[in-house]
Amino acid sequence: MPTINEIGFLGTGIMGGPMAVNLAAAGFTVTAYDPDRIRLASLAERGVAAAASPAEAAAGRDAVVVMVASGPVADDVLFGSGGAASAMRPGALLIVMSAIAVPEAEAQAAKAAKLGLRWLDAPVSGGESGAKAARLSIMVGGAAGDFEVARPIFDVLGRAVHIGPVGTGELAKLVNQLTVASTIVAVSESLLLAEAGGADPARVREALLGGFAQSRIMDEHGKRIIERDFAPGGPAKYQIKDTGAAKALARSLNLDLPMLNLADRLFCDLVENGGGDLDHSALFLELMRRNGRLPQGSVLAAE
Amino acid sequence: MPTINEIGFLGTGIMGGPMAVNLAAAGFTVTAYDPDRIRLASLAERGVAAAASPAEAAAGRDAVVVMVASGPVADDVLFGSGGAASAMRPGALLIVMSAIAVPEAEAQAAKAAKLGLRWLDAPVSGGESGAKAARLSIMVGGAAGDFEVARPIFDVLGRAVHIGPVGTGELAKLVNQLTVASTIVAVSESLLLAEAGGADPARVREALLGGFAQSRIMDEHGKRIIERDFAPGGPAKYQIKDTGAAKALARSLNLDLPMLNLADRLFCDLVENGGGDLDHSALFLELMRRNGRLPQGSVLAAE
Repeated sequence: MPTINEIGFLGTGIMGGPMAVNLAAAGFTVTAYDPDRIRLASLAERGVAAAASPAEAAAGRDAVVVMVASGPVADDVLFGSGGAASAMRPGALLIVMSAIAVPEAEAQAAKAAKLGLRWLDAPVSGGESGAKAARLSIMVGGAAGDFEVARPIFDVLGRAVHIGPVGTGELAKLVNQLTVASTIVAVSESLLLAEAGGADPARVREALLGGFAQSRIMDEHGKRIIERDFAPGGPAKYQIKDTGAAKALARSLNLDLPMLNLADRLFCDLVENGGGDLDHSALFLELMRRNGRLPQGSVLAAE
Repeated sequence: MPTINEIGFLGTGIMGGPMAVNLAAAGFTVTAYDPDRIRLASLAERGVAAAASPAEAAAGRDAVVVMVASGPVADDVLFGSGGAASAMRPGALLIVMSAIAVPEAEAQAAKAAKLGLRWLDAPVSGGESGAKAARLSIMVGGAAGDFEVARPIFDVLGRAVHIGPVGTGELAKLVNQLTVASTIVAVSESLLLAEAGGADPARVREALLGGFAQSRIMDEHGKRIIERDFAPGGPAKYQIKDTGAAKALARSLNLDLPMLNLADRLFCDLVENGGGDLDHSALFLELMRRNGRLPQGSVLAAE
């Protein structure tokens, strides 16, 4: 198996920035590209070299990591004009860590294969805090041998599980987002019921964390809801991209998943009512709006 | 503050049995009543004395713990013919650990007060395994002083949080059940999507447990779903008692909680289709039924 030393890194935003820094700190040679030149330059003092294009970041590297906002953007930085793929040597490894649709992953993997490149889809869960703390959960689709080659990268960023062939990492990420979105709705309804019923929601959360209602969402997002701290984190507008993709996948499999449909509808309501840039835990505000309980001056439009 | 030494225990079923045994093992003198004489007698060798009636179990005790199937049963063993309350000395403490409706708790607390008895509602989360391992989460409503008196009992059984006044323990329990029921649906839909999409659900669960999708339900009930192990645990027929009570409470507060309504409907479907005695994680089977994916010979009626 080849050993990876030099990494190209495409996309140094909220997630990609700290991931690139962590890889450089672990001893990899990291050359990054981002259209935001100021953001990119700010990483230089933390060991991440700046490239002028995806192709420059990728040329001659053992592996290229992609952490951009969507499937079409990933396709563009890889296969568009000045894209990374054409600059890479045959046998090098593409690792797409963005959350993209399963068919997009399959199509991009096929294009990569034609160029003699290997491919993993490796989306993550854990958010900005997980990226910074190198505690991401990484869901990997692709060949088992390629997973082993990439493992030193994943080990720096968090904890990786090899799910199955190309696309199954993205499938697992959609499943993850289905669980996350639904659990945020469940926690929001629960804490609203607690408050409306006259209990201190902080004590209810504390009690629930000790039993079967425990979840990381109840812990972290429940705390946000109680403190009304809706600074992202994970903006609601990205949540509906993922629930929308999960719905499309379910439809293509002829699956009726009523809770996914409900969660998607409620998050769309939140975005339509002005909450798209709030953390996804602001679903609680959408429930308050729906019930005529929004406080005066709320960022959301009233019912 | 009085110290509790002698405990009357009403209801020694799946939950109450191990709880009574744990209290006896911790040094309390425990006298129990249960209509199932065989079940009750089987506890004698584990230090729990048998009484012939609720009144006999309660007479002269410092505290009486109630762990029966419903609010009406609790009312009967406390205030019916041969009930516990009339046999207790003024100032003694009633601790109702059954999940009952908030208005039932308030009504029973008022009856107890007329007899000079103190009262806590202290329902639990954690199931049979939590009861046996003395790792229950206990949600307590009532006076702070009474909570402190009862704390040595709670400390034997698990971890208690004082939520607020009488009824708020039961409120927290309903909130807990809302979270649990919704999370079971979310985990069921997630694992069904993973399977239908062609991924190994065991690997998806493993990956999800490392990120924001982590929950105790994903851990324990997700494992049951993957292994198709639906022996209760927490039977589905009890789940709909709790989601029904949560719906009634929400209605009384003029709250529209769409996910609670959906979860309640799906669990009712499961029970109506023959799954009432299965563990509540069998909601997964109801989703398979709904999607025409039930295996041959399933315990559920096909779509």
